[in-house]
Amino acid sequence: MSGRIGILGAGSWGTALAVLLGHAGRPVTLWGRDAARLSRIKELRRNEDYLPGVELPGSVEVVEDLGRVAAANWIVVTTPSAHVRGLARRLAAFSPRPGLLVSCAKGIELDSGLRMTEVIGQELGDVPLAVLTGPNHAEEVADRKATAAVLACADEALALEAQGLFSAPWFRCYTTTDVAGAEWGGASKNPYALAAGMAAGLRLGDNAIAALVTRALAEMVRLGTAAGGRLETFYGLSGVGDLVATCYSRHSRNFRLGEQLGLGRELAEVQAGSRMVAEGVPNTRSLRQTARRLGARTPLLDEVHAVLFEGKTPAGALRDLLARDPRPEAD
Amino acid sequence: MSGRIGILGAGSWGTALAVLLGHAGRPVTLWGRDAARLSRIKELRRNEDYLPGVELPGSVEVVEDLGRVAAANWIVVTTPSAHVRGLARRLAAFSPRPGLLVSCAKGIELDSGLRMTEVIGQELGDVPLAVLTGPNHAEEVADRKATAAVLACADEALALEAQGLFSAPWFRCYTTTDVAGAEWGGASKNPYALAAGMAAGLRLGDNAIAALVTRALAEMVRLGTAAGGRLETFYGLSGVGDLVATCYSRHSRNFRLGEQLGLGRELAEVQAGSRMVAEGVPNTRSLRQTARRLGARTPLLDEVHAVLFEGKTPAGALRDLLARDPRPEAD
Repeated sequence: MSGRIGILGAGSWGTALAVLLGHAGRPVTLWGRDAARLSRIKELRRNEDYLPGVELPGSVEVVEDLGRVAAANWIVVTTPSAHVRGLARRLAAFSPRPGLLVSCAKGIELDSGLRMTEVIGQELGDVPLAVLTGPNHAEEVADRKATAAVLACADEALALEAQGLFSAPWFRCYTTTDVAGAEWGGASKNPYALAAGMAAGLRLGDNAIAALVTRALAEMVRLGTAAGGRLETFYGLSGVGDLVATCYSRHSRNFRLGEQLGLGRELAEVQAGSRMVAEGVPNTRSLRQTARRLGARTPLLDEVHAVLFEGKTPAGALRDLLARDPRPEAD
Repeated sequence: MSGRIGILGAGSWGTALAVLLGHAGRPVTLWGRDAARLSRIKELRRNEDYLPGVELPGSVEVVEDLGRVAAANWIVVTTPSAHVRGLARRLAAFSPRPGLLVSCAKGIELDSGLRMTEVIGQELGDVPLAVLTGPNHAEEVADRKATAAVLACADEALALEAQGLFSAPWFRCYTTTDVAGAEWGGASKNPYALAAGMAAGLRLGDNAIAALVTRALAEMVRLGTAAGGRLETFYGLSGVGDLVATCYSRHSRNFRLGEQLGLGRELAEVQAGSRMVAEGVPNTRSLRQTARRLGARTPLLDEVHAVLFEGKTPAGALRDLLARDPRPEAD
């Protein structure tokens, strides 16, 4: 399967993937929601807002017409999770028939509790779906830093085709058939990156952050397996790999947002000062809904929820977490 | 069980534990191998070499006489793993009968493949043994930064007693009965911290380090469970918790040593310039012996071994690791 690759979303990840695929000489069509930004990208051949200094290869075309992406053989969705349903609905109007649609959106839909490929499937009907995820900071992929990713697709043959599409000497792509597990790992790491950021903002230190990450992994596994993911997936690149990449990197906007909260700033104030979408904020709400529905115990997620939406201070939340009675670790 | 606590080893962790226990008003006897250093600590009431600026509480006495520690109700071993057998043998001459001996040494003995509590048990005979481990940078514990640790003891009642001994408002101590798992986690994280440090020295970026840490965890689990540890222990504080604390912190001497190697310096040169013992160097050798004996697949450990002992460059080792054929992640 060859042909044109349509990328939906001209943020940092959509742009980095356009650069990755374009460098391999593949024909790429990049589309974004913001027409003004698109025309700047078109003119400069760079996305100065999201990936400053990185040139788009010649094989990347930038378009305002969503129909052009709908006609591609491969469609790659990189928009924030809250916009995925609306975008899929707009796309459905063009009756797209791609060989594969690859979702890179990391989130769970509010109220429905659906994963992003489930949302897209509802809107587009019978289109083959896959997920590209893992510890993949866009800046580093664009900079050709060695990176490993996971391509999840229920159809193994399609997974291998997509692996071939995305692979580059600096971008290794592993495959799995566990789409649910891959999506739950990516969706659930962001609230925990907010927690790690808060701990850093509160100057708690490396010991405390390592303890938080350990508890975060345990919660991710409890929630993600209850929601249908396979255990081993959470211990791979799309689970623990993405979790540590997000909790330990200044590239992570969720970590940085959490850090600002830990330093005492208000959520609305921090969000107003950044054009980047911190997925962890809506994800905390939707993940917590699902955790309650499935009866999964998520004390860390609950504390992040309390800070974001219930007026609790980060100091109070982390104090309550760390002050729980010591007991056998396996409890 | 109360009474005097004897700490063997006046390095950073032995000193930090003396400070932790001393602050709780407990009588502590601190002993170290280096008489000159001990007398400086005694005079200054600080360990300027290993934990500069931190005052020893009044209840901590510093002694040159090993017999004083041998007579304590609790004995805590914090020496580097390569010195544990020799020290235990010296201790055996005093026929110590502590209520509990707690090992904090993180390593596997060369050639024998024994864990540190197994080594101590061989030398001391029928003494109750436990392990204190986890993501615990000494500097932060001494600085009263929130920290979580694991106390592993086959006897649950003794585990609870030891938990009570070490717990402080800033030091939470969880318990487990999986002594083997707790020791294997602590022993195997250091070679991987060397690898993470090499990657950092080579400027590989956060994506690559997250991928390395993910593979390190998979190897730790394969090797540690083959050696008798329980799976769930490696996903807790003493496994993944200690691994991330070590791979992502400048406090880690193994990470820093690996970073120097990644920057192109020679092992002998880096080791000569530091008085701290980087456990990862001997551990890489002993872990690899055990891995081969048990038939556990450890490609990352093998590459670290090749860099330390077979003249391979860090760049070559990481290139070979990252260049392996992509395939299903679960393979």
